[in-house]
Amino acid sequence: MVDPSDSLGAEERARAALDPSVYDYYAGGSGNETTLAANVSAWDRIAVRPRVLRDVAAVTTRTTVLGTPVNTPICVAPTAFQALAHPEAETATARAARETGSLLVLSTRTSRPVEEVAAALGPTPWWFQVYVMRKRALTRELVERAVAGGARALALTADTPYLPRGRRDRNPSLKTEPEAEQAPDLTFDDIGWLREISGLPVVVKGVLRGDDATACAAAGAAAVWVSNHGGRQLDGAVATADALPEVAEAAAAAGLETYVDGGIRRGVDVLRALALGARAAFIGRPAVWGLAAGGADGVRTELLALVGDLESAMGLAGARSIPEITSDLVWHPPAAGIR
Amino acid sequence: MVDPSDSLGAEERARAALDPSVYDYYAGGSGNETTLAANVSAWDRIAVRPRVLRDVAAVTTRTTVLGTPVNTPICVAPTAFQALAHPEAETATARAARETGSLLVLSTRTSRPVEEVAAALGPTPWWFQVYVMRKRALTRELVERAVAGGARALALTADTPYLPRGRRDRNPSLKTEPEAEQAPDLTFDDIGWLREISGLPVVVKGVLRGDDATACAAAGAAAVWVSNHGGRQLDGAVATADALPEVAEAAAAAGLETYVDGGIRRGVDVLRALALGARAAFIGRPAVWGLAAGGADGVRTELLALVGDLESAMGLAGARSIPEITSDLVWHPPAAGIR
Amino acid sequence: MVDPSDSLGAEERARAALDPSVYDYYAGGSGNETTLAANVSAWDRIAVRPRVLRDVAAVTTRTTVLGTPVNTPICVAPTAFQALAHPEAETATARAARETGSLLVLSTRTSRPVEEVAAALGPTPWWFQVYVMRKRALTRELVERAVAGGARALALTADTPYLPRGRRDRNPSLKTEPEAEQAPDLTFDDIGWLREISGLPVVVKGVLRGDDATACAAAGAAAVWVSNHGGRQLDGAVATADALPEVAEAAAAAGLETYVDGGIRRGVDVLRALALGARAAFIGRPAVWGLAAGGADGVRTELLALVGDLESAMGLAGARSIPEITSDLVWHPPAAGIR
Amino acid sequence: MVDPSDSLGAEERARAALDPSVYDYYAGGSGNETTLAANVSAWDRIAVRPRVLRDVAAVTTRTTVLGTPVNTPICVAPTAFQALAHPEAETATARAARETGSLLVLSTRTSRPVEEVAAALGPTPWWFQVYVMRKRALTRELVERAVAGGARALALTADTPYLPRGRRDRNPSLKTEPEAEQAPDLTFDDIGWLREISGLPVVVKGVLRGDDATACAAAGAAAVWVSNHGGRQLDGAVATADALPEVAEAAAAAGLETYVDGGIRRGVDVLRALALGARAAFIGRPAVWGLAAGGADGVRTELLALVGDLESAMGLAGARSIPEITSDLVWHPPAAGIR
Repeated sequence: MVDPSDSLGAEERARAALDPSVYDYYAGGSGNETTLAANVSAWDRIAVRPRVLRDVAAVTTRTTVLGTPVNTPICVAPTAFQALAHPEAETATARAARETGSLLVLSTRTSRPVEEVAAALGPTPWWFQVYVMRKRALTRELVERAVAGGARALALTADTPYLPRGRRDRNPSLKTEPEAEQAPDLTFDDIGWLREISGLPVVVKGVLRGDDATACAAAGAAAVWVSNHGGRQLDGAVATADALPEVAEAAAAAGLETYVDGGIRRGVDVLRALALGARAAFIGRPAVWGLAAGGADGVRTELLALVGDLESAMGLAGARSIPEITSDLVWHPPAAGIR
Repeated sequence: MVDPSDSLGAEERARAALDPSVYDYYAGGSGNETTLAANVSAWDRIAVRPRVLRDVAAVTTRTTVLGTPVNTPICVAPTAFQALAHPEAETATARAARETGSLLVLSTRTSRPVEEVAAALGPTPWWFQVYVMRKRALTRELVERAVAGGARALALTADTPYLPRGRRDRNPSLKTEPEAEQAPDLTFDDIGWLREISGLPVVVKGVLRGDDATACAAAGAAAVWVSNHGGRQLDGAVATADALPEVAEAAAAAGLETYVDGGIRRGVDVLRALALGARAAFIGRPAVWGLAAGGADGVRTELLALVGDLESAMGLAGARSIPEITSDLVWHPPAAGIR
Repeated sequence: MVDPSDSLGAEERARAALDPSVYDYYAGGSGNETTLAANVSAWDRIAVRPRVLRDVAAVTTRTTVLGTPVNTPICVAPTAFQALAHPEAETATARAARETGSLLVLSTRTSRPVEEVAAALGPTPWWFQVYVMRKRALTRELVERAVAGGARALALTADTPYLPRGRRDRNPSLKTEPEAEQAPDLTFDDIGWLREISGLPVVVKGVLRGDDATACAAAGAAAVWVSNHGGRQLDGAVATADALPEVAEAAAAAGLETYVDGGIRRGVDVLRALALGARAAFIGRPAVWGLAAGGADGVRTELLALVGDLESAMGLAGARSIPEITSDLVWHPPAAGIR
Repeated sequence: MVDPSDSLGAEERARAALDPSVYDYYAGGSGNETTLAANVSAWDRIAVRPRVLRDVAAVTTRTTVLGTPVNTPICVAPTAFQALAHPEAETATARAARETGSLLVLSTRTSRPVEEVAAALGPTPWWFQVYVMRKRALTRELVERAVAGGARALALTADTPYLPRGRRDRNPSLKTEPEAEQAPDLTFDDIGWLREISGLPVVVKGVLRGDDATACAAAGAAAVWVSNHGGRQLDGAVATADALPEVAEAAAAAGLETYVDGGIRRGVDVLRALALGARAAFIGRPAVWGLAAGGADGVRTELLALVGDLESAMGLAGARSIPEITSDLVWHPPAAGIR
């Protein structure tokens, strides 16, 4: 019995709609794709321990992310070059986020101007994802446009000092200018620099260790985001579900929120993520598949299906609200290795 | 070498006899069917440690369930709408239970009138499974008819405040009236209410955590039943074999019996369940396959095969009677995750 | 690179030579054949930790089994009705054991008269396997013939109070007379009875628990033999490699030797068995395959290949003699469940 | 998305270029090839825990091996009879090592004269691998030629007192003269003897246990090399990744360096090896595949791809130099058994 909320259907429709090289660009990971696969299987290993008899007539997924009220902890991760997936690109994704009440993170590598996407979002809160480029003035210019457009926070991608050998987006058509490549000399000091030039809170995306979460806090970060870049950077890196508990514990000790992405495909995965300490869960590929399959409508369908699936999972697990998704709701077996 | 007591044969015969959508309705689980598969594989992970040289010339499976003597700890779980499987439906299943000396639990969603099924059962003890419906008067009416028909206990289904998204019985032909849907505002207080309106002991079905077992006891329950609804409710929920030990321990501390269903296909699985703390093991699908394949005779054949298989497993494990199925008879490896 | 010492080749040749029902009779296990498969895979999980630079110019597999000197700890387990495999049956197997200097255990269900097999063995030590039958006089008669024929010990099969449901040798052509079936009322007291009527040491075959080993010692047994009857009795029983350490520890504490069978296919498996506490390792099916493929020559070829493979494994592991096969030579991961 | 730095491509090209029996000779392992497969999968189980925001603009793989500066910790393991793979044989491999700045270990069973290979290496440091042969004078003669040619150390193969039964290089065309077979009476004393006749430090190759590392140190070894001969000696032996931590700990306690080979196919595997305590990682088959596919150019391509892949992995893991590859960079799950 296949659950219609499962994103597989959208992926298949997207695959049919996309040029194979574009599908591969979004679907693929680096190296042997060990981490890409581990991201998905690590959630599947976590057994949920439902509570019963809890009066779940009213279930709400409403919460706050970095202090901002949102309808759902399911947020939209930044993905690059969405014009490859659909002509309306990030603007379509923005409309879907607005209609769903989800939080969107716009990529530095947006196909559409920041201002146009911001206009499509209207009053809906959104963040801007930042690659610190070799020519930092380019980054400053983009950040300033995002600030002017109303971004509420910056998500600094920390796991991409450069692309790994052999990643497919090294292919010529996707190649960025050298000065626009991410600065490999990026350090914790860039957190402060981004705060200064933007006046916005800085979320560090790509944290996979507790000690790095502590260091981010010390450097002035507002939150950390557990990510291995969807299995596209270091192949062999720990699955995000396995890294999450230690990062969330260290972040919480420093008063920071923790987010997570990677392999989240169902509502029950979001419930698992929150039980392991995440405040929000970000989805990347499922939104792209929705976009490719049906533009703004397609993204909204995917988001609403996931939100509904989360509501269903929460009620069936006896959790009526986000704060009731506590750590005792799951059994997290000791990581048995990445494969 | 395939054991003839294995229910695979009956499932294959049932599949041939049933409309594919009906077969799918009974066979399927929710979501990706992770929990459906985990229920079966979790028993298979448990190694049995047989005793030798114990004089097993006489092996008896006789025991009591909630104080009622039964021929076997293998009982028949409630399954809905049995007319889909065979025209004689629950009445046929009841005849088989009577002839076998097994305990039957009749579903709220019985295709045949409670009174007719009770008559077919005669003096054989039986329980009535209760969905607390949105319109509680409907539940009260059904419970009163069950009491009048001689039910010995009520089995309150606690894991179904509503159906999960995408479960197949949402299809129109199986749809219940809105007022007959289970009440999502069901709480521990309903245990007391059911006791009051029925005067019967209440067994809570769907308990997967030790703390919930303790809470059921505090709310006046007579026993708890470890179940994830055959993998049809929250996909991702812990396998029943993995949840059983903690629930049984908490229930025993409160003086309650524990039952279990989910993935039990062989006599050795029943032995494993009892060694992990269950008083009885309930079978759902195997009885339905027997019913579809051969009516009352088919159910009886399945039940007798399982009882015989349990006797064989007990003797080969050096356990002459149910009390000799103690925890040292198995090695339960630490749960390695649901998948 | 396939090792020519591997018994796969012989099994394939045997399969080609045998009637399919006979091949199935020897190859199969009970139930779902979970234990049959687990016996093999459990050895494969045990990592060997070789020693280097130990002067292995001379490696000897000579040892004693129950005080009797043997050329090798690889002994021949009893298997029934060998005439099904080859017209010379047990007599051929006996010649091969004699020529190899291995210890043979002759089955109660021998196809050839005990006296003829004993004559073929000549001065080579051998044991007699005993089923205690419902009519104990039959057992006594067979034991007395074995004593007269020179058997050095009795191996009492303790794991077969009766055959499990569905085992293939229930088929008519293999059916034994009711009075010749094994007595289900077999107890530890039969150990003493067998000692009395035979004057021989009694080895208890089928022990899978430490407490049973202790009880065997208390009842006068001379040794215990870890076996689950080649996966042909209780399906779901622990693999012999996983049961061996606890049995060997309890047996050693009582001054008894421990033997093991089940899934041993290569020299390195024998080394693993001895490192986990076994004094000898018995092979069943590999000898039958050799017998079916080539009579006495076939059995001898299999035995010599295994002995050579053990010598090779010992030298490569830095163990020059049987006493140097100590527990530090392996890493035994915690049993992860039977499947 | 397949990483071009992966050696699979070279293996496929080599397979096409080589006679099947030669490909099999290099590719195969002993026995059931359990250890051959475990060597690869054991690295894959180790999850990397990348650090972020570390300024990885400059990453260097430079290090020292046994005190000798090298460009990379990726060194070339000895492999026999390279003329089978390419007419320029070891001389081509030597040129590639020289051009890459990698450390080469020349096999006793070199197809080309030691002097010719030494000349091709020029000033590049290299070691000589030693089989102590039955006729030790042959070994002495080869060692003296290696010393004269400028070898910086001897790597004594300790895991091959003889070839295991059934290994493919027992075939006639590869057969060595009896007096040239490795001495099975090899002991720790041979470490001292090799030091005396050569004046060179002696590295013991084939160590898989901590106690043997301690014994090597006591016998005067300069370093230990964790190896199971590429899965070609004792099938069933522990995977090198699983043996490495205990050997490295014991070696470090005695002041010795530890190296490792076996199953290393990617840069991230080298990073894992160094995080687990290795000073250098040796590759065997990947160099042979490069040699077969393209002579010196092919070997250099493979080496440079691996070095680049290691640099990439280091940067993405936040390790700018070899000393920053510390044990906290990986999660090493407890060995779950060899299979």
